[in-house]
Amino acid sequence: MLISDRGEQELLKLIQPYCLPNTIGDDGAVLHPPAGCELVVTTDVLVDGVHFSDQTTTAFDVGWRAVAANLSDLAAMGAVPLGITVGLSLPPQLPVVWLEQLYTGMQACLERYGTGIIGGDLTRSSIITVAITALGAVKADRIIARSTARVGDSILVTGYHGDSHAGLQLLLDPQLSRDLRMFTDAADLQVHRQRLITAHQRPQPRLDILPIIEELRAGASEIFPISGMDSSDGLADAIDQICRSSRVGAILTRSSLPISPSLSQLFPDTAVSSALYGGEDFELVLCLPAPIAMALVDKIGRDAAIIGTITRSPDIILVDDSGKYPTIEIDRQSGFQHF
Amino acid sequence: MLISDRGEQELLKLIQPYCLPNTIGDDGAVLHPPAGCELVVTTDVLVDGVHFSDQTTTAFDVGWRAVAANLSDLAAMGAVPLGITVGLSLPPQLPVVWLEQLYTGMQACLERYGTGIIGGDLTRSSIITVAITALGAVKADRIIARSTARVGDSILVTGYHGDSHAGLQLLLDPQLSRDLRMFTDAADLQVHRQRLITAHQRPQPRLDILPIIEELRAGASEIFPISGMDSSDGLADAIDQICRSSRVGAILTRSSLPISPSLSQLFPDTAVSSALYGGEDFELVLCLPAPIAMALVDKIGRDAAIIGTITRSPDIILVDDSGKYPTIEIDRQSGFQHF
Repeated sequence: MLISDRGEQELLKLIQPYCLPNTIGDDGAVLHPPAGCELVVTTDVLVDGVHFSDQTTTAFDVGWRAVAANLSDLAAMGAVPLGITVGLSLPPQLPVVWLEQLYTGMQACLERYGTGIIGGDLTRSSIITVAITALGAVKADRIIARSTARVGDSILVTGYHGDSHAGLQLLLDPQLSRDLRMFTDAADLQVHRQRLITAHQRPQPRLDILPIIEELRAGASEIFPISGMDSSDGLADAIDQICRSSRVGAILTRSSLPISPSLSQLFPDTAVSSALYGGEDFELVLCLPAPIAMALVDKIGRDAAIIGTITRSPDIILVDDSGKYPTIEIDRQSGFQHF
Repeated sequence: MLISDRGEQELLKLIQPYCLPNTIGDDGAVLHPPAGCELVVTTDVLVDGVHFSDQTTTAFDVGWRAVAANLSDLAAMGAVPLGITVGLSLPPQLPVVWLEQLYTGMQACLERYGTGIIGGDLTRSSIITVAITALGAVKADRIIARSTARVGDSILVTGYHGDSHAGLQLLLDPQLSRDLRMFTDAADLQVHRQRLITAHQRPQPRLDILPIIEELRAGASEIFPISGMDSSDGLADAIDQICRSSRVGAILTRSSLPISPSLSQLFPDTAVSSALYGGEDFELVLCLPAPIAMALVDKIGRDAAIIGTITRSPDIILVDDSGKYPTIEIDRQSGFQHF
């Protein structure tokens, strides 16, 4: 059964069960924004062959990743999700099951974070394109912006970096896994390989960090601002963007870079570069006063690390406290460029 | 200069002047929704070769039409626009000037209605795709829904219908204009032709109707509900959708159909069918108590008409008060189908 076998109304009926109740069926969806909150709006477009391919991503995972990328942008602003709209373009020759799997993947990720689909559009095209707009709510004094990092702030990073990029390499190049067998125990390889691939296919937007920050704020004697963004285009890019917006620089410590055991085990030579420039990890990079950063790491647990400090000098440099590697300046051009 | 000659950051810089100040530069845009209002969200995707083509639409008009379609959806919900996001996919071989013209067209339409671009995404693709999400605000008791039409309501329609479709035909088929020369005075043909083409290229979302409704409400002794939607997929489709949602039917009067002098002059044989099934006129179809409908027509002036009545019987029929044409049942399948 292909998309072209169904009329538009039939396809809309097929999609409806994946949407939140009472949102579909009018020219627009109606949303009741929480009182006293600012609204955060973010849009991401994923294109077949550019952001995903059959080789690396099932329809379910295209849905999951598209939602995760948008929810990650909300988390990066400190906002709780209210819902998403999905603007979908599909080739008529696509099997209908692909569409169903896409929505199943989107719904799975949305449900995990307590939100859902509130609207969208469906049209034909020669290429699959998924345009998602996510809406979230945040109190004005809780907005996380890129432009407010201050000299002396600690740079806190959630999760591991570089895993998604390594997972993508493994998916794109089957020979790579075969080569790795020469250096790695077979059972270990299997476990590490799967972890890296999962990091690529099912990224987790860090909305779980927001209530932890709120808990910390509740116990704090003073209001503290948090600056930051997500690391969707790479850790180095995130730090670069924050530094440019805030007109500051940064010193990062090589040994603190959040590199997973799987990445360092399978790719010891390229782990640092993957972590800095790989992208699509969808973690948070936050700048906040050092004592609060430490308290936050304590609360988050092993899944967060302080990797450096905001400096007055505009450079971004990576120092090695072991003395084994030279101090290097971060390449500001290696971030993911879409054109 | 082609899109591929510029990096993503450069392209974003190029777009920035077209966006509202202080909205771009973070993971999401922050919007301050008016207190006590519901939020309306609507998404439309336009694809090159499906919804527009070089033959019929300049980049400026693609931008104008994309915005107009979304603002029309807001108007159809009774909502005042707060801003839009633009998810854009572009082929690398596209001239940069196309992108600039697109944004110029979007901005022109947005400015006319007092709103602007607050965010978006830019990515490469093999086909131009414009995915717009528009946000609007409406008080809960002012929402115009499809599902609340009541038996006895008058059906009020703004503007003319069928002009956009006829304009598109004229753009697609140059021979058509040559043929029309045989039947029409040259100067008349030129004027009518241009009116129909303009209706297609620069549709006007009917946000101007909302304050007129508010004025009427202010003077009314009772609260009155309004049901309706826009006629983007055709007048017949709009009435069909409203009737299905509200579980009612409708009787329309042939002589009241809002057909422009230009349409009836150039296309006397197909004017009724264009008006019913043409689509993309982006006018409003509203159902409301007869006395209020009449008062609203008085206030709007010549640019609105009552074309029929909501009935208990679920059929939608077109009657001819002159007795010249037979009563016909509206074809519910002729609306614009995207697949």
